[in-house]
Amino acid sequence: MSDYSIDAQVSESSVGMVETKFARFESLPLDSGLMLSPVTLAYETYGELNAERTNAVLVLHALSGDAHAAGYLPGEVRPGWWDILIGPGRAFDTDKYFVVCSNVIGGCKGSSGPSSINLDTNTPYGLHFPVVTVPDMVRAQKMLVDHLGIARLLAVCGGSMGGMQSLEWVVSYPEMVTSCIPIAATHRHSPMQIAFNEVGRQAIMKDPRWREGDYYDVEPPDSGLAVARMIGHVTYLSDESMHTKFGRRLQDRIAYGYDFFTRDFEVESYLQHQGEVFTKRFDANTYLYITKALDYFDLANGHGSLVEAFAEVQPDTRFLVIAFSSDWLYPAYQSKEIVRALRSNMLDCTFVEIHSSFGHDSFLIEVGQQTHLIKNFLEVTARVGGVKIG
Amino acid sequence: MSDYSIDAQVSESSVGMVETKFARFESLPLDSGLMLSPVTLAYETYGELNAERTNAVLVLHALSGDAHAAGYLPGEVRPGWWDILIGPGRAFDTDKYFVVCSNVIGGCKGSSGPSSINLDTNTPYGLHFPVVTVPDMVRAQKMLVDHLGIARLLAVCGGSMGGMQSLEWVVSYPEMVTSCIPIAATHRHSPMQIAFNEVGRQAIMKDPRWREGDYYDVEPPDSGLAVARMIGHVTYLSDESMHTKFGRRLQDRIAYGYDFFTRDFEVESYLQHQGEVFTKRFDANTYLYITKALDYFDLANGHGSLVEAFAEVQPDTRFLVIAFSSDWLYPAYQSKEIVRALRSNMLDCTFVEIHSSFGHDSFLIEVGQQTHLIKNFLEVTARVGGVKIG
Repeated sequence: MSDYSIDAQVSESSVGMVETKFARFESLPLDSGLMLSPVTLAYETYGELNAERTNAVLVLHALSGDAHAAGYLPGEVRPGWWDILIGPGRAFDTDKYFVVCSNVIGGCKGSSGPSSINLDTNTPYGLHFPVVTVPDMVRAQKMLVDHLGIARLLAVCGGSMGGMQSLEWVVSYPEMVTSCIPIAATHRHSPMQIAFNEVGRQAIMKDPRWREGDYYDVEPPDSGLAVARMIGHVTYLSDESMHTKFGRRLQDRIAYGYDFFTRDFEVESYLQHQGEVFTKRFDANTYLYITKALDYFDLANGHGSLVEAFAEVQPDTRFLVIAFSSDWLYPAYQSKEIVRALRSNMLDCTFVEIHSSFGHDSFLIEVGQQTHLIKNFLEVTARVGGVKIG
Repeated sequence: MSDYSIDAQVSESSVGMVETKFARFESLPLDSGLMLSPVTLAYETYGELNAERTNAVLVLHALSGDAHAAGYLPGEVRPGWWDILIGPGRAFDTDKYFVVCSNVIGGCKGSSGPSSINLDTNTPYGLHFPVVTVPDMVRAQKMLVDHLGIARLLAVCGGSMGGMQSLEWVVSYPEMVTSCIPIAATHRHSPMQIAFNEVGRQAIMKDPRWREGDYYDVEPPDSGLAVARMIGHVTYLSDESMHTKFGRRLQDRIAYGYDFFTRDFEVESYLQHQGEVFTKRFDANTYLYITKALDYFDLANGHGSLVEAFAEVQPDTRFLVIAFSSDWLYPAYQSKEIVRALRSNMLDCTFVEIHSSFGHDSFLIEVGQQTHLIKNFLEVTARVGGVKIG
């Protein structure tokens, strides 16, 4: 296949140029009892809302993601983080669905977060930003969905943290969700997941430049944030994918000339690069706030148990739960716990463990199987619900 | 059982009070081509060498270990790191064997390492300490064994890095090793193992107090070293053992009063504590040197392949290779690779994957099964070799 035809193929199924939009709200009540005010939420949309306003699909991102899920922003050469799944003819077919991707409260990608200006002081919040939870993030997204004039979502979907938000959506607003696709997610973090997040937080907070979160007018704690990102990155991969990607290949020098400043193995160079580029696009305080929100998240909170958490879900709500065989950070057993609780409530749930070697990152990489599963699931959901699509 | 009888039981099978000794050598040739001079190696011994000098067992420690494997040092309340396996009647039965535990070159526990004084400058070496490899560590230990007047070891044994050294011993000095017990080890690090080590090194080197290793007369890079230790610690545990040990139990406060300085989950408090205490007993530069030695280690180096590496091993050498089911850092498949290579050489090899939930730390914790395996293996080795024991 020539380069030309690849280009043509890409452009045909791409949503093309996009823009990030910002919804503004007067205030948002938080689980802590505090009120966040004002509130900005960044989002993007792809495709067209149908006349009945029934074809909307809400897509939610992972820890380091943002509202830019598909297509190209002006001046950028890389498409959005889930571009492989969103576009004309793709899993989330923008010829059929109105896809909304929402950022989160507490973030640093255009939504209100610790780097936003606190109007009380006219300086960035820093650690004065209130504690936010996953239900808080979802409560803000509900305001966005209302703002867009959508009474009911055809589907809510996301991987990792996005999957946790998807589950919270169907529990918090069961009447607004026709179907739910949590991918590589969990109903609550295990102590190991908390432990990895905590080491990342410690790396940030032990960086003297962190200054208890008050660094916005000086040099930020890039060293700590880079180490946090490196830790995260290792946990997103798998032993197998790292073997394939790096092996034990050395860089361009022999072993015994090395010193500790040199990147000997390719995997070291890769990790250092990942850490460095992350500091250019992410805020250290947001890393603290969001990882804490994830660690505290427990879908059973306020419900007694996970089974009881799903008690108010409408009986015709459909679920597609996806896990990946090599994902040791969010292992398949966690998805199976969700599936068991859904089935205990007699809910319609399809569970698929995709055989993939890419570890937790599989949800960002596996095109073929996810496309097949999600595309069919959405079409059946629309047909069952009598929703007109394309 | 009363407390009294527990005490009595412990003291009966303990080696009791011990002392760390130091062997001094003029020089050690290194793989780098450099010469380390002078050389000190810390070690301890338990039990008695028999008249034929044939009952010596060399025990080797992991990354953060030291020569103090069993019994009690003056003023300390905790016994050595493998006290559960070394003592009268224990796996390494000191009524039968002369157990030697040797520290490593590059370390910070009494052996020559980056915190030692460089006689050329009368200041600590820091990064002027030469690069050391696992074969270098073993070459120094060989000098110690010679110094002790032992021509042939009944067994060489260790977990993790100690297992890697044990393998190097049998390959470097096949005529000196009657049997070898590598536990939770590998013949070379996977990219994932390198990656976790590299993140730890980055945490240290990004600490401004590291000062390119020149911190011995000022405040050391405790923050970076603590983060490195926390990363390591998470990888030594397992999802299951962490569930059992911590669950999602919160400390003595409720969720929404927290700030980021507070340790909410028990696992967070535990990790922070582990990081802090480690800085009191370990040197950051040693962490860099030893993890690099581990990452470079490849038993096949200079031999063409792992199978060829064992070509010179004497045909009657016995092997007991142990792995643990929940060890995801040094997974059982790595031990199986060693076993396959040994069997390709028609060598006598017993492989056991112990079902245990303690992750990589299992080799430090599992008393019952390791005792049973090692005790029997050593007795058969002594009997087959005609070695008089106790």
